[in-house]
Amino acid sequence: MFEKRVYINRRQKLHQKMDSGIGLFLGNTYVPYNYPANPFKFRQDSSFSYFFGINLSGYAGIMDFEEGKDVIFGNDIEIEDIIWMGPQPSVRELASNVGIHNTKPFDQLADYIKTAINKGIKIHFLPPYRAKTKLQLQGLIGDYIPSEKLIKSVIDLRLIKEKVEIDHLDQIMSIGYEMHVTAMLMAKEGVYEREIVGAMEGIAASYDGGVSFPIILSKHGEILHNENHENLLKNGDLLLVDAGFDSPLGYATDHTRTFPVSGKYSEMQRNIYEIVLAANDAIHKASKPGIQYKEMHFLACKIIADGLINLGIMKGNVEEAVAMGAHALFMPHGLGHAMGMDVHDMEGLGETLVGYGDELERSSQFGTAYLRFARTLEEGHVVTNEPGIYFIPALIDKWKSEKINNDFINFTELEKYIEFGGVRLEDDLLITEEGSRNLGENRIPIYIDELEKIVGGK
Amino acid sequence: MFEKRVYINRRQKLHQKMDSGIGLFLGNTYVPYNYPANPFKFRQDSSFSYFFGINLSGYAGIMDFEEGKDVIFGNDIEIEDIIWMGPQPSVRELASNVGIHNTKPFDQLADYIKTAINKGIKIHFLPPYRAKTKLQLQGLIGDYIPSEKLIKSVIDLRLIKEKVEIDHLDQIMSIGYEMHVTAMLMAKEGVYEREIVGAMEGIAASYDGGVSFPIILSKHGEILHNENHENLLKNGDLLLVDAGFDSPLGYATDHTRTFPVSGKYSEMQRNIYEIVLAANDAIHKASKPGIQYKEMHFLACKIIADGLINLGIMKGNVEEAVAMGAHALFMPHGLGHAMGMDVHDMEGLGETLVGYGDELERSSQFGTAYLRFARTLEEGHVVTNEPGIYFIPALIDKWKSEKINNDFINFTELEKYIEFGGVRLEDDLLITEEGSRNLGENRIPIYIDELEKIVGGK
Repeated sequence: MFEKRVYINRRQKLHQKMDSGIGLFLGNTYVPYNYPANPFKFRQDSSFSYFFGINLSGYAGIMDFEEGKDVIFGNDIEIEDIIWMGPQPSVRELASNVGIHNTKPFDQLADYIKTAINKGIKIHFLPPYRAKTKLQLQGLIGDYIPSEKLIKSVIDLRLIKEKVEIDHLDQIMSIGYEMHVTAMLMAKEGVYEREIVGAMEGIAASYDGGVSFPIILSKHGEILHNENHENLLKNGDLLLVDAGFDSPLGYATDHTRTFPVSGKYSEMQRNIYEIVLAANDAIHKASKPGIQYKEMHFLACKIIADGLINLGIMKGNVEEAVAMGAHALFMPHGLGHAMGMDVHDMEGLGETLVGYGDELERSSQFGTAYLRFARTLEEGHVVTNEPGIYFIPALIDKWKSEKINNDFINFTELEKYIEFGGVRLEDDLLITEEGSRNLGENRIPIYIDELEKIVGGK
Repeated sequence: MFEKRVYINRRQKLHQKMDSGIGLFLGNTYVPYNYPANPFKFRQDSSFSYFFGINLSGYAGIMDFEEGKDVIFGNDIEIEDIIWMGPQPSVRELASNVGIHNTKPFDQLADYIKTAINKGIKIHFLPPYRAKTKLQLQGLIGDYIPSEKLIKSVIDLRLIKEKVEIDHLDQIMSIGYEMHVTAMLMAKEGVYEREIVGAMEGIAASYDGGVSFPIILSKHGEILHNENHENLLKNGDLLLVDAGFDSPLGYATDHTRTFPVSGKYSEMQRNIYEIVLAANDAIHKASKPGIQYKEMHFLACKIIADGLINLGIMKGNVEEAVAMGAHALFMPHGLGHAMGMDVHDMEGLGETLVGYGDELERSSQFGTAYLRFARTLEEGHVVTNEPGIYFIPALIDKWKSEKINNDFINFTELEKYIEFGGVRLEDDLLITEEGSRNLGENRIPIYIDELEKIVGGK
């Protein structure tokens, strides 16, 4: 955990934003895997962890915005528990580590809330995403309609990363690096995708963390969230690896690399790859405070459309093609999303609120509709920069048969790429005072010569 | 998955046991990790998987015991989903693979259940263990009181392993073997526990499975379910490793080994180890159909008490000591539990129902109360055989100060062992026609000379 003052400071800021009511933060609990006593690895709720810093199951935190008072609810363990779990720090000790001196047993929470409700005090809470939290809210409050004021206040705080958060993110990027380079070193003909996935998950676990999302590792990179890892790798395949580390403090890394199993890009692979790489590098250079990330999204789309026109796969005018959404046949997703404690940071608080705020309207056009982060960039934002080009047979069939954007797509030339797969190149960008930088000491190898050396040099 | 006939056969048997009503089996769904769209790795409910064989999120199965009809409820995917997930088999196809030809969209389940309830038909279901399943049952039925008749019928079936299950268990034991031998090869001074845990989890993931429970790997083996892996290993430490594989079909392995980080047992470590090993081997030899596993538990306790009397840690008469529960200071848990699709097989259906049936009463004596499986053994049972000896400071302090079993414990001699830690040795036993055998082709190294060679030979 961070130093005590970090948590005190965060809560103070939230107290300043919220003028009335009580903030109820339910920490996560263990989730049963296949029976009650056999849990998944514990993951604390990010907002609970952000304000209260206790990464254990079965806690709740209260911020009384009227009296300016914070309370931790949790249970100390008994002698029988010591046999099974070993000695544990007391609730009082855990609370004191984050600057809170009011603690109560967990089962007093219900009375505390009931008393407040009876006094007419509003209980603010964030949207529940686990069924268990919904059941708890049913019992405590009777509904689970979250507080928009609390949501917006928490987004305001968490969106701008503090120095301790940036330092921590910079540090854990080395674990993302190790995971990705391990994949590059393992990829070769005759290896199953799942073997590489296992090694990467093992690295994350060895640092006492997890993966920040289910690893996407596939020779079918055109399937955006492919969770099947049963394919056997062969020379000629292009392997797409999208993976990150979730630190014990609950901070994420998120990178994508795409490389040929053989270690050598074919001409076709190289041509597509270089377009995506050019888009990634251009976004990195152009991102800075004051610019909308939506504009960066369209910049990436234009570079992609331009590259595909040069290859004869698209045709017509770049600006018009992108305005019509023709590029979305190849890049049907957005340029990126906020990242931080959650890999899609605060997505559970409302993706559009996080990514668009009150300032922007979300597009409904296919492709652009999936842009998760569009806001005007500010110093301290962390966003992913992840352009891609994919050849998705089902989507190509649909567009061809329905003549969608027929004026901008050369379906005859496109046929040649039908078994290509997909390329995505993703880095984690910190918006700085003057521009942006890729988080972490070393950028995960991304240039063709670097990758051919690592993947091919084994 | 297994062949179609396996699932047809299982459902037929359940239809024979249940004469009326409708059996509702809710499959598991993805559980959100830190926001709705970011899930933990999917784990199907074991009973759903046993009867319906579909290991995907969002399915339900119905067995109409009155009309002898089975139905699968689930949703086919849309074009937008194909972009993200790739092409998927249809619900009709998945159902047909397990011999079911009635399929319906998931949202028709509510009407189906409501119609049955209105006709006065009883809906049987198993105890829910996930909050999401409880919410589903609230919506569908209005309560979540499970059906005892269904519970007992399912236990009867799942308790006796079929040949295909035994073959599968025999196969996956090699992955448990690989995980444990990897731990032996990695253990040395200067390594963190979490590094070994990571490598073991990585192996499980590389076979497209998971760990069958959170890995217990600790130099503090006296903490029975230690989930902290932050210790640095040093020569002199005894490392206890309790871990298993959860296969893609949802079958478990579960073994414990204990060995010295240095590769060489001290005299004290060897003395305690040999008692536990003698108990494990004796249970293996004595277990056979017709014998109560409760008797095996007491046999292990007596071997342990006898060994500790020989070392001067306990005193008095073995039979009397065990009758009084004095051994439980050192082995506060039971000899073992059923194993199969769940590592504590069917614990979610009721541990006492599974382990004691209608035949036996569960003891309330400290130690024996934790015996999870006591039944008369039958051919096809799979149970763990896991005797242990631990020196638990908090428990020793309590017994000493409260003079518990004072006549059987030599607290002065015991002082010398206060920093010892613990030893547990666990195998997975299949009860055969004539006796029992350890599952898997090769027994994970357990004899001192084997272990000193592997751990010390690096």
